[in-house]
Amino acid sequence: MVLAIAESERVRGTTSPNPPVGCVVLDEHGHPVGFGGTQPIGGPHAEVMALKEAGTRARGGTAVVTLEPCSHYGRTPPCTEALQEAGIKHVIHAVSDPNPRAAGGAKRLEEAGITVESGLLENEVATGPLRAWLHYARTGRPHVTWKYAASLDGRIAAQDGTSQWISSETSRKQVHDLRAKLDAIIVGTNTVKKDDPALTARDDDGMPLPHQPLPVVVGMSDLPDGAKLQHTALHLRTHDPDEVLTTLAGRGVVDVLLEGGATVAGAFLRAGRIDRVLAYIAPALLGNGPAAVLDAGVSTITDAVRLTVEDVTMSGPDLRISAVPQT
Amino acid sequence: MVLAIAESERVRGTTSPNPPVGCVVLDEHGHPVGFGGTQPIGGPHAEVMALKEAGTRARGGTAVVTLEPCSHYGRTPPCTEALQEAGIKHVIHAVSDPNPRAAGGAKRLEEAGITVESGLLENEVATGPLRAWLHYARTGRPHVTWKYAASLDGRIAAQDGTSQWISSETSRKQVHDLRAKLDAIIVGTNTVKKDDPALTARDDDGMPLPHQPLPVVVGMSDLPDGAKLQHTALHLRTHDPDEVLTTLAGRGVVDVLLEGGATVAGAFLRAGRIDRVLAYIAPALLGNGPAAVLDAGVSTITDAVRLTVEDVTMSGPDLRISAVPQT
Repeated sequence: MVLAIAESERVRGTTSPNPPVGCVVLDEHGHPVGFGGTQPIGGPHAEVMALKEAGTRARGGTAVVTLEPCSHYGRTPPCTEALQEAGIKHVIHAVSDPNPRAAGGAKRLEEAGITVESGLLENEVATGPLRAWLHYARTGRPHVTWKYAASLDGRIAAQDGTSQWISSETSRKQVHDLRAKLDAIIVGTNTVKKDDPALTARDDDGMPLPHQPLPVVVGMSDLPDGAKLQHTALHLRTHDPDEVLTTLAGRGVVDVLLEGGATVAGAFLRAGRIDRVLAYIAPALLGNGPAAVLDAGVSTITDAVRLTVEDVTMSGPDLRISAVPQT
Repeated sequence: MVLAIAESERVRGTTSPNPPVGCVVLDEHGHPVGFGGTQPIGGPHAEVMALKEAGTRARGGTAVVTLEPCSHYGRTPPCTEALQEAGIKHVIHAVSDPNPRAAGGAKRLEEAGITVESGLLENEVATGPLRAWLHYARTGRPHVTWKYAASLDGRIAAQDGTSQWISSETSRKQVHDLRAKLDAIIVGTNTVKKDDPALTARDDDGMPLPHQPLPVVVGMSDLPDGAKLQHTALHLRTHDPDEVLTTLAGRGVVDVLLEGGATVAGAFLRAGRIDRVLAYIAPALLGNGPAAVLDAGVSTITDAVRLTVEDVTMSGPDLRISAVPQT
């Protein structure tokens, strides 16, 4: 399953609105003989990719897959059929399919005499490569990660507005790697005016990474002439997070990164449309300067948006904190 | 040495301006036969306490001590003499004495035919129980830890001023345990007016712990009539951190906790008089409300007060971050 998760991660960001599934086929002796990840929309699913590599060695073997194999005809035939035809005898999957149209795969496989085991490393997959897609499958809305970089005292810039660089090179590189696994990045018109970002995912040498997220600008104002995003971004003239998310869902966007600023973050927080907070906290104090978020709809302490910390790691000298709102 | 460090920690907060030293005496076979920590001012040092417990079993044995034994006559006779008289053959200490008047202990012991080893777990001791005292011995100033509790977005209270409780019960209990190991706690007059704190160290049942720090209020305004600190606190009518620290050093204060608020913290930061930052970050977002620090003397990003993170732990649901300013 660890190898299947790696396959899942490898294709993350390239499969939406399909889930980025990973599959490893083991032969009858338990040796891995085929690896696969879901191909871009219209292409084969992970199971089919792994079975193709395994060939006849799949006969009598096991398919280890991050998501319950689908049993319906969509753009491609059901994976349950491909597994049967290849002579697979056991299927182990991490997460059951929450999508009623695709679910029932395990039942179909068992009816065909294949043993099915569910739940192996379920949590790792559900909070890892399939997290955004599972949210999307359950709610119909893209999954929103709000990312910000701030000082230990919560400032995203100094008093004079300078912010390059609060966070370390390591953290900035992590964000570029993250962008390359996402469907879309949202900023507000204020951020475009102030920072003129390109919102591209680049490697260490500044070269674009293979997969680029859709840049989205939210807000009423026109983008300044000559702004890097003027001709590349989808500009949504609204302040309503749900309108933004509905439009993006219609374009097959599943996994969204909200990159700023304080006003847009506040609007999404007030609407309860932030599913994960990813804070890069630089070990520095600024004492003055703009805050990471304005008006989260909280006026008294008992109304605080309470989070649960999922994970804390060091990113160079910075702290990287991943937290999810309590429901 | 781990046992000696535990002895050191046990007496921390009760020995100032002397260092909270810990000592374990091993007999000639290496078995621990005496434990001791420095007694309050005028009382015996750690070595003497441990030797007393060991008695004649110390003969031919080893003394393991967190600080190089003193060789001068102060309020008590030199520990080097006590070690010789007890027949100790080996001394292992963690940290060499930075105090020129007390140093030379190792040399004196070697002249008496005792083997001396220095540096064992030096870093653990120097950043642990002897941290504040070593700072005080080197600079003449008390060591200042600035502690604050804030939300992930850096707010110490909500928009309406409510702040009870941003941080968790676990974190608040940790702070009470910390207070009981300190010499003094500083707050500003604003904090007295707003929160009316008692600044006592209490146990889980709200009962006072054995050692209480000196409460210190800094600022020009009178304390409100009936304030809990009105008759217990030392009120220093100044805004100058160095004046505060000189006064406290004169009273034998070595280890200080700065508990607030944003104005006093800013003054100490601008003066470069914060030696450690202890931030309890609650996983919550407030979006508005007062910040942890105001005017740290930073107007542009390159002037940020850069810190190095020493330690990050979870304190219940909160993050506890210990960081020191870069020099």
